Amino acid sequence: MRLLNELDKDDLTKVGRTLHSFAAELYPICRSITGNGIRQTLALIGNQIPLQTVEVPTGTPVFDWTVPKEWNIRDAYISKPNGKRILDFRDCNLHVLNYSSPVHATIPLNELRPHLFTLPQYPEWVPYRTSYYQETWGFCLSDNQMLNLKNEDYEVCIDSTLEDGQLTYGEYYLPGRSADEVLVSCHACHPSLANDNLSGLVVAAYLAKLVAQQQNRHYSYRFLFVPGTIGAITWLAKNRENAGRVRHGLVLTCIGDAGGFHYKKSRRGNAEIDRAVAQVLRHCGEPHEILEFSPYGYDERQFCSPGFNLPVGCLMRSVWGSFPEYHTSADNLDFIRPEQLAGSLRVCAGVVDLLENNRRYCNQIPYCEPQLGKRNLYRSTGGDAIGTETSARLWVLNFSDGEHSLLDIAERSGLPFAAISDAAEVLSLAGLLSCNHAIAGEHRNHRQF
Amino acid sequence: MRLLNELDKDDLTKVGRTLHSFAAELYPICRSITGNGIRQTLALIGNQIPLQTVEVPTGTPVFDWTVPKEWNIRDAYISKPNGKRILDFRDCNLHVLNYSSPVHATIPLNELRPHLFTLPQYPEWVPYRTSYYQETWGFCLSDNQMLNLKNEDYEVCIDSTLEDGQLTYGEYYLPGRSADEVLVSCHACHPSLANDNLSGLVVAAYLAKLVAQQQNRHYSYRFLFVPGTIGAITWLAKNRENAGRVRHGLVLTCIGDAGGFHYKKSRRGNAEIDRAVAQVLRHCGEPHEILEFSPYGYDERQFCSPGFNLPVGCLMRSVWGSFPEYHTSADNLDFIRPEQLAGSLRVCAGVVDLLENNRRYCNQIPYCEPQLGKRNLYRSTGGDAIGTETSARLWVLNFSDGEHSLLDIAERSGLPFAAISDAAEVLSLAGLLSCNHAIAGEHRNHRQF
Amino acid sequence: MRLLNELDKDDLTKVGRTLHSFAAELYPICRSITGNGIRQTLALIGNQIPLQTVEVPTGTPVFDWTVPKEWNIRDAYISKPNGKRILDFRDCNLHVLNYSSPVHATIPLNELRPHLFTLPQYPEWVPYRTSYYQETWGFCLSDNQMLNLKNEDYEVCIDSTLEDGQLTYGEYYLPGRSADEVLVSCHACHPSLANDNLSGLVVAAYLAKLVAQQQNRHYSYRFLFVPGTIGAITWLAKNRENAGRVRHGLVLTCIGDAGGFHYKKSRRGNAEIDRAVAQVLRHCGEPHEILEFSPYGYDERQFCSPGFNLPVGCLMRSVWGSFPEYHTSADNLDFIRPEQLAGSLRVCAGVVDLLENNRRYCNQIPYCEPQLGKRNLYRSTGGDAIGTETSARLWVLNFSDGEHSLLDIAERSGLPFAAISDAAEVLSLAGLLSCNHAIAGEHRNHRQF
Repeated sequence: MRLLNELDKDDLTKVGRTLHSFAAELYPICRSITGNGIRQTLALIGNQIPLQTVEVPTGTPVFDWTVPKEWNIRDAYISKPNGKRILDFRDCNLHVLNYSSPVHATIPLNELRPHLFTLPQYPEWVPYRTSYYQETWGFCLSDNQMLNLKNEDYEVCIDSTLEDGQLTYGEYYLPGRSADEVLVSCHACHPSLANDNLSGLVVAAYLAKLVAQQQNRHYSYRFLFVPGTIGAITWLAKNRENAGRVRHGLVLTCIGDAGGFHYKKSRRGNAEIDRAVAQVLRHCGEPHEILEFSPYGYDERQFCSPGFNLPVGCLMRSVWGSFPEYHTSADNLDFIRPEQLAGSLRVCAGVVDLLENNRRYCNQIPYCEPQLGKRNLYRSTGGDAIGTETSARLWVLNFSDGEHSLLDIAERSGLPFAAISDAAEVLSLAGLLSCNHAIAGEHRNHRQF
Repeated sequence: MRLLNELDKDDLTKVGRTLHSFAAELYPICRSITGNGIRQTLALIGNQIPLQTVEVPTGTPVFDWTVPKEWNIRDAYISKPNGKRILDFRDCNLHVLNYSSPVHATIPLNELRPHLFTLPQYPEWVPYRTSYYQETWGFCLSDNQMLNLKNEDYEVCIDSTLEDGQLTYGEYYLPGRSADEVLVSCHACHPSLANDNLSGLVVAAYLAKLVAQQQNRHYSYRFLFVPGTIGAITWLAKNRENAGRVRHGLVLTCIGDAGGFHYKKSRRGNAEIDRAVAQVLRHCGEPHEILEFSPYGYDERQFCSPGFNLPVGCLMRSVWGSFPEYHTSADNLDFIRPEQLAGSLRVCAGVVDLLENNRRYCNQIPYCEPQLGKRNLYRSTGGDAIGTETSARLWVLNFSDGEHSLLDIAERSGLPFAAISDAAEVLSLAGLLSCNHAIAGEHRNHRQF
Repeated sequence: MRLLNELDKDDLTKVGRTLHSFAAELYPICRSITGNGIRQTLALIGNQIPLQTVEVPTGTPVFDWTVPKEWNIRDAYISKPNGKRILDFRDCNLHVLNYSSPVHATIPLNELRPHLFTLPQYPEWVPYRTSYYQETWGFCLSDNQMLNLKNEDYEVCIDSTLEDGQLTYGEYYLPGRSADEVLVSCHACHPSLANDNLSGLVVAAYLAKLVAQQQNRHYSYRFLFVPGTIGAITWLAKNRENAGRVRHGLVLTCIGDAGGFHYKKSRRGNAEIDRAVAQVLRHCGEPHEILEFSPYGYDERQFCSPGFNLPVGCLMRSVWGSFPEYHTSADNLDFIRPEQLAGSLRVCAGVVDLLENNRRYCNQIPYCEPQLGKRNLYRSTGGDAIGTETSARLWVLNFSDGEHSLLDIAERSGLPFAAISDAAEVLSLAGLLSCNHAIAGEHRNHRQF
């Protein structure tokens, strides 16, 4: 299975535009951790891949947490005494403090003030704020809008409901030959914010499409589209016994902006997924940085809690919280770019290809080098210096001793995994390598703390 | 037990002045590796802490060494034929070669010369020289003084005795709940030299006072004030069987000058004391450097000899031998500073606090994060970014899996040990952590070569 | 056994001149992987050391390869229609494509062209090209010579034979107390190329002479002078069962030019030979660099194939393929220098000395330091700071715990191995160390993949 072969058949620019269009389709919806916004979102993703939607009732205990009430909102505004709306949820769904309880009143400015959130350092931008676990209401607006408010009475209305209902998440499972799983998870709970995390949703959805097109999967694949924190906790609570099947996992977030890649390693720090992503990034042609695990961030926090300690890392471009547009109205459709979305999909595909093809081989002629020349496998392009192709073959032959995986060899040689993997294929066809067809990850990854 | 809480109640400037005054009180005494000078010194330390004085007779075999004769000195001088003293032990006790045998004679300059020691590169300073194990006599003087000597006869007198007697050292033992010991050792044999090592003596004495004020000691503590080399060897010879109780040890020397800290690691190189000192220095706000172990230096040489291989490092500011004032009359009371002495005491107190509080905890809710918000333990100061306090709690929860000590977590998180330790306390009170109350050091430190 | 003591009795400049003269004697011979050229070469080496010559018949299977036909050449030229030779093998044996099949014909330039090899970027130089395993013929010439060729007919003649015969290699075995071997191998198949690899041949031959002069060898030594690739493979095929006796090995190549040293580590990466060479280079006073193993290069490829995985590294000055003179007529006798040849011999001798003397000792007085002063072993040169000699003794005493070899101690102390080894000798004579006289390499080097 080689996703990149499939992906590279297409024009990558076209792929980028498709991803961006899908993000644009999802953008207007007012999502939250529960409610109809996330349901609509999952329905649109369901148009791309056959998503299974799971509903979990309010009040369900999930480890130390409880599934909260379901939140829905129809309208919200602040209007002048004359009825003129000066802040309108219909213009921008960030204007309402996410999970606001309903309110309808006319109050003077000094009573309204504590319910208003602005960003003085970016006076044009509207911040994104939430209050999931403390019932209150509020509005978010630009600092310029706030400065225009006069000392008079305002009608405030949040036409929301906060009632017993469901928490909703989406799951797409693709069985492979092995019950071992590759997990791809992203949060689907943010309203009109593009990089965080429509970028993650669209890349994950199209990665799922690519994987689904392949018949010959070694691993099983699970794609999760969940509300942040509580969604991951809920999924883990419902799948506690089988979570150990996750051999490799990625949380995707903030993956569409113009920044270079950042990969935050799993808690284990040297899991195969950590090495696989580092390897793919090393040769991706874009700037990138590897970050150590820390217990804050996105849902890798839950997957990497000590009771689970799953090998799940987090792939980003710009790191959440580190760019000014983060959690503001400036994280819009202009902030994410088609070519970056396509590049992120390409990296994810490269990681999947690596995991699928990372075997351990045994050189069948381990005493001295086999004579590649008589098999037309040496210096195929002639000349004095050996090229990458011949070099990769010599590396694979020398280190295929049953101990070293192809990823080990790629790391040690400094050559791209694809070159190493191609070499292994050619040498196998020539009868110079044997493989028990077990995947490298199976022998080595024991659950560890 | 938290020494820093106690120490920080006081004005640190005042603490510094107290330490410096005590050094000034000890400064005039002519100490050596045996004799009344070290006895007086131990007596003055005994005014601060209830020191036990041990006397070991001349001739006692101590491993490969033998306790030497006891040396005492009343007077020493060089005088002109007219009786005028041109070099007087009463002016500066460095003037006599330490451990000089008695002499009284009138000799010409050319016979005197081989018995004179100067420092041509620092013509104003008097060097400090010793001859413990080879019987001879001599004088140390400034090079300027030497240049004034004329080619005439001089009366030389060293009114010393070198006779069977005792080697004397002081010991202060503070029992804790555990028989495992923290050892603090310093050499008390140098005459009027301030940094080397009155600084060590006064910091050790006041550290002992701080520890003694605490009721709730986990470890037992042993403070040694010994003559260099032979004193440490003698103590080890008399305590060979129990030396293995030393779980963590520090030699203190040259700890009062204006330089940044230097910590020389124990022979083991990764003992808990090595990591503890590095951790405290990382956050002490002063320049510092960690040095690898080497088999020369002060009494860590003996504690780290291969037969013992105790986890004992050496804390210094400027490294012995590396500053020009070392072993000269310029290592005087101006060379050490109150604020530096206090800063050194603070580092030692921080190390003790770390050792006392370095436990392994178990997260009681290891599956996913516990909901800190409902316990008022999340983002206690509000705002968008999580602060050190919340961050420390997340680190402690994530890594409290029974394997990682608080020191491990401090190292991995980059946060100060105190922040990690505070987080563990808060989380324990909230029932989120359990601890078997064993100290981290107990599980791990086996005696190793 | 100390080769350096022996070597340093001589004037190193004189040694260099001797090595260069020997290279000059070997230079004119037209060598190849088989035939009379390599036989003559081995005969000349045999004048220096009692070399055993081994002949292996054409057609003999050696692992995945087959011993090729034997190649011999008497003459070769290109001449004008008037009979005037414009390219003459007798001028320079690089002019003929090595292993050319015989040819004698008159052909137009356009038919000759595909058989000509030049170096356009170095128009004065003649390249060195071979075609061992594909029967063809060709000429190598300078690009300037090529540009002078006119569009006319040329007589081409290669008076060679390619017939069943023998593959010839030389071997010199020096038994020691142990059957464990130190292997030194170099390729002897290149025609008039000085750095690659007459430099290796002459250094290996003189190293063998030095070793042979020593009676007291711990290891047995084996020197191989073999045709590249096929020669090493043939030797390994004939010695498969005993190859495991090789405890340490060096391939010597390109070791006479003006560049600094490069040592390419064995596949194991941390074998004693790897550490030994790094240690000697660290203190050799010349620039040097340590390179990781890679599965291309010279015969270390075969010794380090996964079935053997012998601890064999490759010592070079400039790295093959990295300097423009490589495999051209510019790699001539001016390109290698007497002083560099001598310096390379000195490094090899230092490595042998290290391997021969790398023992583990046990400090007989492990509790505290022994009193070196009473044995006249402390600060033998007086003064305040301890010198290298005393320092080396303290390091050896402290780390001679039966675990650390002298090489371990040299590495940890940063002192040269010779200083550490001298200290061990002095301390042994003083009864402070015991040694079971086993060599460090014996306990630790298990065959590993």
